[in-house]
Amino acid sequence: MRVQRPKGTVDILPDESGSWEKVEQILRDFFKQANYREIRTPSFENYSVFARSSGETSDVVEKEMYDFNDKGGRHIALRPEGTAGVVRAYVEDKLYAPEVVKPLNVYYIESTFRYERPQAGRQREFHQIGIESFGSDNPLADVETIVLAHDLLAKLGVKNYELHINTLGNSKVRQDYHDALVNYFTPFKDQLSDDSKRRLEKNPLRILDSKDDQDKQFLPGAPRIIDYLDEESKANFDQILEMLDQLDISYVIDNDLVRGLDYYTGVIFEFMVEDKSIWESASTILGGGRYDNLVKEFDGPVTPAVGFGIGEERLMLVLQKQNPALFADQGIDFFITNIGQETQIKTVEIARLLRKNGLKVQYDVDQKKLKAQFKKADRANAKFVITLGAKELSDGVLNVKRLADGQTFKFSFDDLENMKAIMKQLKE
Amino acid sequence: MRVQRPKGTVDILPDESGSWEKVEQILRDFFKQANYREIRTPSFENYSVFARSSGETSDVVEKEMYDFNDKGGRHIALRPEGTAGVVRAYVEDKLYAPEVVKPLNVYYIESTFRYERPQAGRQREFHQIGIESFGSDNPLADVETIVLAHDLLAKLGVKNYELHINTLGNSKVRQDYHDALVNYFTPFKDQLSDDSKRRLEKNPLRILDSKDDQDKQFLPGAPRIIDYLDEESKANFDQILEMLDQLDISYVIDNDLVRGLDYYTGVIFEFMVEDKSIWESASTILGGGRYDNLVKEFDGPVTPAVGFGIGEERLMLVLQKQNPALFADQGIDFFITNIGQETQIKTVEIARLLRKNGLKVQYDVDQKKLKAQFKKADRANAKFVITLGAKELSDGVLNVKRLADGQTFKFSFDDLENMKAIMKQLKE
Repeated sequence: MRVQRPKGTVDILPDESGSWEKVEQILRDFFKQANYREIRTPSFENYSVFARSSGETSDVVEKEMYDFNDKGGRHIALRPEGTAGVVRAYVEDKLYAPEVVKPLNVYYIESTFRYERPQAGRQREFHQIGIESFGSDNPLADVETIVLAHDLLAKLGVKNYELHINTLGNSKVRQDYHDALVNYFTPFKDQLSDDSKRRLEKNPLRILDSKDDQDKQFLPGAPRIIDYLDEESKANFDQILEMLDQLDISYVIDNDLVRGLDYYTGVIFEFMVEDKSIWESASTILGGGRYDNLVKEFDGPVTPAVGFGIGEERLMLVLQKQNPALFADQGIDFFITNIGQETQIKTVEIARLLRKNGLKVQYDVDQKKLKAQFKKADRANAKFVITLGAKELSDGVLNVKRLADGQTFKFSFDDLENMKAIMKQLKE
Repeated sequence: MRVQRPKGTVDILPDESGSWEKVEQILRDFFKQANYREIRTPSFENYSVFARSSGETSDVVEKEMYDFNDKGGRHIALRPEGTAGVVRAYVEDKLYAPEVVKPLNVYYIESTFRYERPQAGRQREFHQIGIESFGSDNPLADVETIVLAHDLLAKLGVKNYELHINTLGNSKVRQDYHDALVNYFTPFKDQLSDDSKRRLEKNPLRILDSKDDQDKQFLPGAPRIIDYLDEESKANFDQILEMLDQLDISYVIDNDLVRGLDYYTGVIFEFMVEDKSIWESASTILGGGRYDNLVKEFDGPVTPAVGFGIGEERLMLVLQKQNPALFADQGIDFFITNIGQETQIKTVEIARLLRKNGLKVQYDVDQKKLKAQFKKADRANAKFVITLGAKELSDGVLNVKRLADGQTFKFSFDDLENMKAIMKQLKE
């Protein structure tokens, strides 16, 4: 029997990989323009890293982790998300040291793993892109993070996105709100879903995110965070909103927004895309917020932090619909067809020279007949075809055909060094 | 206690990630110029994928695999190398179908995992880069693969590399040679290492690669593949060598070269680098060869194939010594310093505009005092510093300082759109 890929995983094949690469290149360039630099952490961490960051009671930790014992008996897990490893590195590699300029701004583009039921757009190995900024509690740091998210989506060509924003306040506020939720839900405890029963004590905030019908009936009456914000938290939130107004970035204040993870403090936000050709209702494609306690949870010094994350599969799904130009086959510049064994070496030499000058060039290593070679040139979406036979070889002549209109041109071998410039003219 | 990264793994931090990214970008561009397109396979596969490709008796499969049972009881393993997943995908995704142009040329850059004793330059999560070409048994396909390897190392700025080349012949030759090795080693069986004892029947070729002193004494007298080559295999090898001669690619014929993996057939090669500042003796940084049976092993149709692989960690080690320019901090174009809260929004706006025009721009989201901001500009290796105070804001004037020589310039806000061109002039 043929070996198959593991359930819930995919291959990204040559015909589609180009658009992934192009999108990632746009992301990298964008992050670098804001002087966010890459950080790469291991694909797996000690299990406790994710138990700490995502919360013991999260679905991720409870049910979805790819965890196992390595050959040395260590309990490790493939990363289910990007932030925990980065925070672990921030502490372990002492990036909090005063000689590291603050805020320290980083980005990552990486594989992440969750053992979930596979469905359209949800795989067991997927890709997460994110930025994190460590070291500033200035509202301008929150604004910069939101502005970057906004401008990034614009740059990628995402349409109809809307910023939803809320605040979870400071730790005092969160504690008060936590208590209020416990008080509210406790009388209904027996009627809640099993998951929510368990979360009632440890993290009642997560009940608000429940998709379970048993829980949903109790959600409309639940206390709302806005009623528990103190003056400081309100002022901070207002400052952020005011700056967004001044920067002409529109938003919707969404008091029901709580985000799925335990570690947020302060402002939280999601960018939602409305596109009926993809989803029935508006869906989140980017989410983030402030998390001032997480570095401390990892036994680092108290460090304010803010960031966002994007699911790459979801982003690609949107871009495929909304910016199809990104998915167009770029083709190659030249395909060199050749006739006869004596032209082989010259063919390779021409290819090497043109490639060295930055052009995309292929020839037929399989040395099929000329007709088959032309077919390959066509399938490779070549702009020009060079034909090299015994006569061209002895005359030192290049026969070049422009595939768009079939027009032909003649050049000497000496022209090869300038082919990039020549090609530019030929295209016009 | 602080959580640490798993033994044998590393973090690639912002100060060093830039050079990794740059090298990978060079690799991608290079592969694309030869119309090799990317393929991405999952980070883990069913265990049997690697047992098939690497051979049951290989160290990789026997001792070094990160294998485990997932939550559904499937025996899976993190990939220890790149080729097996690609071949699995080639068969499962039917890339052998006639409508896919042959040869199908792909490349990959990916994380790979082996549970080995960590040492300098050898980690448990490392990175492999490779290309594979499926569908041609023409010697020109072998030559193209070797030429690409050669030109790639040249392009990266690797120095003092030497191509070592050998052939393992066709399957009849390998079988004869296999039998000869079994006959030769069997009388010494009791004196061989345990590993080699086990490999004697299944894969005696691997004994030749043994680093064990017990085995080494028997290696000089062992039969050599060259004495078993038939006419066909010799002619094929000679054709390849002749083309390399014509292309001025120098090589050393190395009859002791067998490569570590079971699946090679025909030509095999390694590029070795001599650099006393890194290694005592010349070391392999790129290796590959022909493997015409592997697709069939995965129950696909008989498909000739050839490729090579590079260990990225090893490559980076060499480049750090041999091409330090790749590791230089590129810095940013502008750092915008600002004074007073009323200038914040304009600061963000200027940054957004300049970034949109392709420039690398930072400002201080933490809004420290001007002196601290200038220090950050310096640490970010900024080429220019813009200073924005209340007066500049009301006058619509930009104060720009070139950090290299301290010279200052004045521009209007209207000049911002053309700042890229202006900056080019200022640099001269």
